Amino acid sequence: MIDLHLIGIGTGNPDHLTAQAVAAMNRADLILLPRKGQAKSDLIDLRREICAQVLTGPTRIVEFDLPVRGNGATYLDDVNAWHDAIADAWRVQIAEHLPGGGKLALLVWGDPSLYDSTLRIADRLRSAGVEIAVRVVPGITSIQALTAAHAMPLNPLAGPVTITTGRLLRAHGWPAGADTIVVMLDSGCAFEGLQPQGITIWWGAYLGMAHEALEQGPLAQAGPRIALRRAELRARHGWIMDVYLMRRELADGT
Amino acid sequence: MIDLHLIGIGTGNPDHLTAQAVAAMNRADLILLPRKGQAKSDLIDLRREICAQVLTGPTRIVEFDLPVRGNGATYLDDVNAWHDAIADAWRVQIAEHLPGGGKLALLVWGDPSLYDSTLRIADRLRSAGVEIAVRVVPGITSIQALTAAHAMPLNPLAGPVTITTGRLLRAHGWPAGADTIVVMLDSGCAFEGLQPQGITIWWGAYLGMAHEALEQGPLAQAGPRIALRRAELRARHGWIMDVYLMRRELADGT
Ligand SMILES: C[S@@+](CC[C@H](N)C(=O)[O-])C[C@H]1O[C@@H](n2cnc3c(N)ncnc32)[C@H](O)[C@@H]1O
Ligand SMILES: C[S@@+](CC[C@H](N)C(=O)[O-])C[C@H]1O[C@@H](n2cnc3c(N)ncnc32)[C@H](O)[C@@H]1O
Repeated sequence: MIDLHLIGIGTGNPDHLTAQAVAAMNRADLILLPRKGQAKSDLIDLRREICAQVLTGPTRIVEFDLPVRGNGATYLDDVNAWHDAIADAWRVQIAEHLPGGGKLALLVWGDPSLYDSTLRIADRLRSAGVEIAVRVVPGITSIQALTAAHAMPLNPLAGPVTITTGRLLRAHGWPAGADTIVVMLDSGCAFEGLQPQGITIWWGAYLGMAHEALEQGPLAQAGPRIALRRAELRARHGWIMDVYLMRRELADGT
Repeated sequence: MIDLHLIGIGTGNPDHLTAQAVAAMNRADLILLPRKGQAKSDLIDLRREICAQVLTGPTRIVEFDLPVRGNGATYLDDVNAWHDAIADAWRVQIAEHLPGGGKLALLVWGDPSLYDSTLRIADRLRSAGVEIAVRVVPGITSIQALTAAHAMPLNPLAGPVTITTGRLLRAHGWPAGADTIVVMLDSGCAFEGLQPQGITIWWGAYLGMAHEALEQGPLAQAGPRIALRRAELRARHGWIMDVYLMRRELADGT
């Protein structure tokens, strides 16, 4: 029996860790740390640093290479095949390091509920017959890191918010019925496809990390500035993670 | 000069506190704790308990009575008048306890960005001429407490999510373009106004607290169960806070 803890660790700042996350890490028999290749080595370094800072007991740490996502016919097929491959990789590690069962922990970037695949991968193990109980420890998301950095509310007073992805924004434009949207997982600058009139943007990259970058303003002016800065930062660091919030004011003043 | 820290404390479980929140509390000169009347006294007790657990230095704690929201012509007018009154109450406390300026902290339920008024109230102080710098420390939201308790993802794979309120759901029905919605601030059971076919609900009350309650299932069956349980719990405890996530599967299978 595997007691799997998916532990949200926040988005780059080790001080985002909750007391609950620290306790769950210390109770684990084994923490698996995925290696994601050279470009994003900062991200595994941060996880190593967090482990070094908070572990006080005999928890074992094992690193393994995360399979790489394919680039096939469709995005969803690629993602599903990739999740299958990760599930296989977990199974190999579990068989080797926890053959008799025990407490396994995974350190999940941000919160495990938000655009993260570990819950879906755990389901695959269960479907494949691995006896597994899943527990989730919430963590600070990149959305909260963004609103905190800008000291701003997420929702307009008593109003709704839509969270979406760069891919969806590019494919379908501004979501119907929404005045405030948060865009994650944008591999480019999907906001460039919008008519900027009446839209304000608040943007953040590497939130919580040493080279955190922030921009905000009317999309017409801030958009080109963000596109430039994003390209520079990406070239300098070899990778980038960014998220942004946009509000639209309708022409009739509502 | 007032250095105001809005510190997210999570939603009922003291172990939701981040290391950053603990540090910010300890650096404060003064923590203001609002009293919200008898019914919700559990909530101030929790804040007192958190202070007792984490404060190690000379931070002063002052309690004050939060003004009560009026019940006038329109909801938004009531809320705005209430925020004005709270800003006045803060000003009185600041003048009395931090006359020469200093570090003021407020412990905000969940995360300060999500359906919380403290950022808007701080803006009012600034407009009224109080010199104030605002910093936000993110906290675990009730949405994350909900998805963690159910060990479930917030978003469908690569899909969007809309966060809304009971009031908006009641007034406008299921939000356009959304398949997954989270409903907060529902004073009743706004889901009862929906056609339940194809909708699944995941519900949680008092999340993170001793009497946490969870329900889930197809809305047609789970809805009436939740309505009953909610009424019982509310009668028993004198107050309730609940939040729920619903997913809709369209008839054509998408
Ligand atoms: C696979 S998702 C994981 C999200 C994560 N579970 C969370 O709670 O934030 C990765 C996306 O999150 C956002 N993101 C995560 N960490 C970030 C950071 N430190 N700064 C800016 N954006 C970040 C970016 O939009 C990125 O494309
Ligand atoms: C004024 S809003 C504050 C939200 C808070 N800032 C957050 O981050 O969750 C209050 C609403 O949050 C939700 N909520 C807050 N704490 C909760 C808890 N412990 N259990 C269930 N719902 C909660 C309920 O929908 C409630 O009506």
